[in-house]
Amino acid sequence: MKLYTYYRSSAAFRARIALNYKGVAYESIPRHLLRQGGEHRQADYLKVNPQGLVPALEDDGVVIGQSLAIMEYLEEKFPEPPLLPRDPLARAQVRSMTLGIACDMHPLQNLRVTNYVARELGQDDAQVARWRLHWIDLGLGVLEEMVNRHSGDGRHCFGNSVTFVDVCLLPQMVSARRFGCDVSRYPALVKVCEHLETLPAFANARPEVQPDAE
Amino acid sequence: MKLYTYYRSSAAFRARIALNYKGVAYESIPRHLLRQGGEHRQADYLKVNPQGLVPALEDDGVVIGQSLAIMEYLEEKFPEPPLLPRDPLARAQVRSMTLGIACDMHPLQNLRVTNYVARELGQDDAQVARWRLHWIDLGLGVLEEMVNRHSGDGRHCFGNSVTFVDVCLLPQMVSARRFGCDVSRYPALVKVCEHLETLPAFANARPEVQPDAE
Repeated sequence: MKLYTYYRSSAAFRARIALNYKGVAYESIPRHLLRQGGEHRQADYLKVNPQGLVPALEDDGVVIGQSLAIMEYLEEKFPEPPLLPRDPLARAQVRSMTLGIACDMHPLQNLRVTNYVARELGQDDAQVARWRLHWIDLGLGVLEEMVNRHSGDGRHCFGNSVTFVDVCLLPQMVSARRFGCDVSRYPALVKVCEHLETLPAFANARPEVQPDAE
Repeated sequence: MKLYTYYRSSAAFRARIALNYKGVAYESIPRHLLRQGGEHRQADYLKVNPQGLVPALEDDGVVIGQSLAIMEYLEEKFPEPPLLPRDPLARAQVRSMTLGIACDMHPLQNLRVTNYVARELGQDDAQVARWRLHWIDLGLGVLEEMVNRHSGDGRHCFGNSVTFVDVCLLPQMVSARRFGCDVSRYPALVKVCEHLETLPAFANARPEVQPDAE
């Protein structure tokens, strides 16, 4: 498998964790999101992935864009170790928490959106930072409550094992810290992340240990 | 089953289509997104769904937030008629196109985000409209190309039957039209929607035929 990736992309970080967790070897193909106006927007990449985003996973000549589609694909192809519970209602709740990060938090902080806020809406750095933190705090607040409801051992977002939510939480918390969020207001999430960071699948997916890290 | 819904919510529209398509009877519980500062933000609803958004599906006393989590749940609980192909790579591509709408388009147009753009970033109505159309056009342009690649019969986004992408496309196109998007630039999408609108599952889920329609 090949993974089109960028070391600092939070969505690519998710895909790397899922690949590592499933024990799937893959080749990294970095696409730099800033260089040359964004290597993900160049014609050769758009031919591969018309969505023009990272990550994208290539398997058997087919390219899959969107980190959550990649995670679901890996879960179907490599059921063990699982990243979703067995019970349908529990699976639904894990997906619901995961989508809370993937739909309601991440899209509002990513580069193309904050670039638009800065350039097209004429907002200065302080306003862009405030924009980012508004959506991060809103989302983390909700997630903190849901983890308090659903975590079994306090070391995972849901139940007692790693699920899709954990795969999305750690990258989101790394971004939150980078953007100046005071994560100490979310003690349940901090505790889960402390555990996740000890797991090789998560540690080896961190931005700073990627081949394209700067 | 109970569906917490709002007639004009694009995400609730998806959940209604999926429920209808699976032939699942449900009780509608409307939460008005504008009245009283948003009935979805009131304490009684936050107890039910801490994410404070619609739709949410209640089954067996468990509440599932997020339309895509609801769709995956219904697909697992009621496999027939399917809303995902059987082949894992095809499923992945359907999910990828679906997430293109759910993550990269919808969150940027929804009410709480455009309210923030207007009130906190001080943008006038014209700038808010331009913001919405920017993300709608970017997303529909990508989807038009993907439907051209993946549609089988020209009446569905992927292959020859209804999938998750179709469930998300029609609500997105209804919003796009409402916000003044010239959808004639996306002929493949228009053609798919013309077909979808003839299907009872889609027609009966339209905002204007909901009990809470205004």
